Amino acid sequence: MRDVAVDVLVERVLSGDTVALARAISWIEDEDERGYALLDAVYPSVGSAYRIGISGPPGAGKSTLVDGLTGHYLDAGGSVGIVAVDPTSPFTGGALLGDRIRMQRLGTREGVFIRSMATRGGLGGLSRAAPSVAAAMDAYGLDFVILETVGVGQSELDIAEAADTTVIVLVPESGDSIQAMKAGLMEIGEVFVVNKADREGAEMTVAELQSMLSLKDEGTGWSPPVVQTTATTGDGIPELAAAIESHREFLKSAGLFEERRRAHFKSQVRAIVVDALERQLLERMGGEAGLDGMVGDVTRGHRSPYEIARDVLDRIGSGGRGE
Amino acid sequence: MRDVAVDVLVERVLSGDTVALARAISWIEDEDERGYALLDAVYPSVGSAYRIGISGPPGAGKSTLVDGLTGHYLDAGGSVGIVAVDPTSPFTGGALLGDRIRMQRLGTREGVFIRSMATRGGLGGLSRAAPSVAAAMDAYGLDFVILETVGVGQSELDIAEAADTTVIVLVPESGDSIQAMKAGLMEIGEVFVVNKADREGAEMTVAELQSMLSLKDEGTGWSPPVVQTTATTGDGIPELAAAIESHREFLKSAGLFEERRRAHFKSQVRAIVVDALERQLLERMGGEAGLDGMVGDVTRGHRSPYEIARDVLDRIGSGGRGE
Repeated sequence: MRDVAVDVLVERVLSGDTVALARAISWIEDEDERGYALLDAVYPSVGSAYRIGISGPPGAGKSTLVDGLTGHYLDAGGSVGIVAVDPTSPFTGGALLGDRIRMQRLGTREGVFIRSMATRGGLGGLSRAAPSVAAAMDAYGLDFVILETVGVGQSELDIAEAADTTVIVLVPESGDSIQAMKAGLMEIGEVFVVNKADREGAEMTVAELQSMLSLKDEGTGWSPPVVQTTATTGDGIPELAAAIESHREFLKSAGLFEERRRAHFKSQVRAIVVDALERQLLERMGGEAGLDGMVGDVTRGHRSPYEIARDVLDRIGSGGRGE
Repeated sequence: MRDVAVDVLVERVLSGDTVALARAISWIEDEDERGYALLDAVYPSVGSAYRIGISGPPGAGKSTLVDGLTGHYLDAGGSVGIVAVDPTSPFTGGALLGDRIRMQRLGTREGVFIRSMATRGGLGGLSRAAPSVAAAMDAYGLDFVILETVGVGQSELDIAEAADTTVIVLVPESGDSIQAMKAGLMEIGEVFVVNKADREGAEMTVAELQSMLSLKDEGTGWSPPVVQTTATTGDGIPELAAAIESHREFLKSAGLFEERRRAHFKSQVRAIVVDALERQLLERMGGEAGLDGMVGDVTRGHRSPYEIARDVLDRIGSGGRGE
């Protein structure tokens, strides 16, 4: 019964059935076994969608920019999937709200599929499910998948690990580029956007960014361009699309495209393996209660966490710290 | 020879030798085996230092505030260790610069020990070493250990996992509290600070914060206070110290202090175990090259990452995803 449902859904996703795609994504998000079975089955059809990661600090106007870029692709006859990852607190409901606003702007157009995901537990980083959700959208037949996340640390790195081109969005506010650098965004951005370019200070922010980027030695031969946009009016959106296209062509002509996808795939496999091992580990220790017991009354400071960890590793037969 | 050096250093750290503490911390940061041996040996003397986590967005004035709080404790006859974790890009050298400025402000006073740690690799989150560095400072005999980190995601969570009291620092700028909420800071803060309280909008930010905090159901009986400070002049620092002290007394009287320390210790043990397993895993797969081979030419989309992960788990004898 279960497998039948998966088979049916696989076929419907591959034939471009929107309702089936929505169901498949829910399975993936819920870590439902059927989601994995579906991914296994559709994977031969995964690979043609171009993946664009869009990140930056809160308030930079990322959602509006993503909607503008999506409109641009739709106008050109392309289809677009949006995976918006929002590390909003569980009690704010921000993800749902954002989803509804966005649906009003784009939802009635053909060729666009939007999915907002709230990362559970506040600071838990980008949901592990995002690359799999992108894969499902890819199999369904979308030309572009845009992965959007608010820039609060780990999530950008996750985005960069899943995207072919990573776009970092900043605004012309004093120190914004410095903060971006501090947060490590300079390292992962391949295209930079100064949004709200109609505001004062935009030119200076662009110059600041360009001078910081000139310090960066990519080693790959790619120099990240800085594009000015005003997402609310659509100004600069075609230039942004052109910059992304340039990076895509660069990757292909330099022979880096497949290499990057392979590296990203590898990271994803490793994350899945480590997750599974962590789960098994907890099981072998007798669950939370077992771990509690092993930790014992260590808060009184008698044994170091490294000693306890060695004990745990010995008990589960993985002795030593591997040194 | 190795063990002799460790023994000697253990004794010197426990007797309050500053040079020995600096050396011990370097071992811990470098993941030197001697660092773990030292931690094992000093752990019976760990537990009396009170740990304060201080986090918030870049530019909130955290360092100045930490220095002010440190001065307050020193004036009262206490001793303070500062662990400043800075996720600065490798090419900026920001951590070193901040260290030097700070040393000028505080470094000549007795009873203070400062250590800045740059998280390696940009976005890798708070160094796993921070709680162990705090433990070494504790064994050395400091009364307070302040863990300071710039608020860019995962690092706050790490700080909250190591601190007895977590302080979140914001500034009176439009939307700052909203951004903090988005970043999940509301969940982890036990004391909130509106720094730069001489700026316009401070009262409104305080009111905004208080109304957001009133939505939060702690379940523990603690209502996080909001303190106004002007770190550059020292205004509000005694009130901040008092708020931290109230939280400390609350934890003790509610019987939550030991429970929290136990939970934090458990997280630390689990992180060490998972790290060790990940290292062993990579070894068993024949290193990066082995993993590369297993991943194969999957970028063409033939097999899903879950299928490959199952293969990897089978090969290393941890079959299945544990479901």
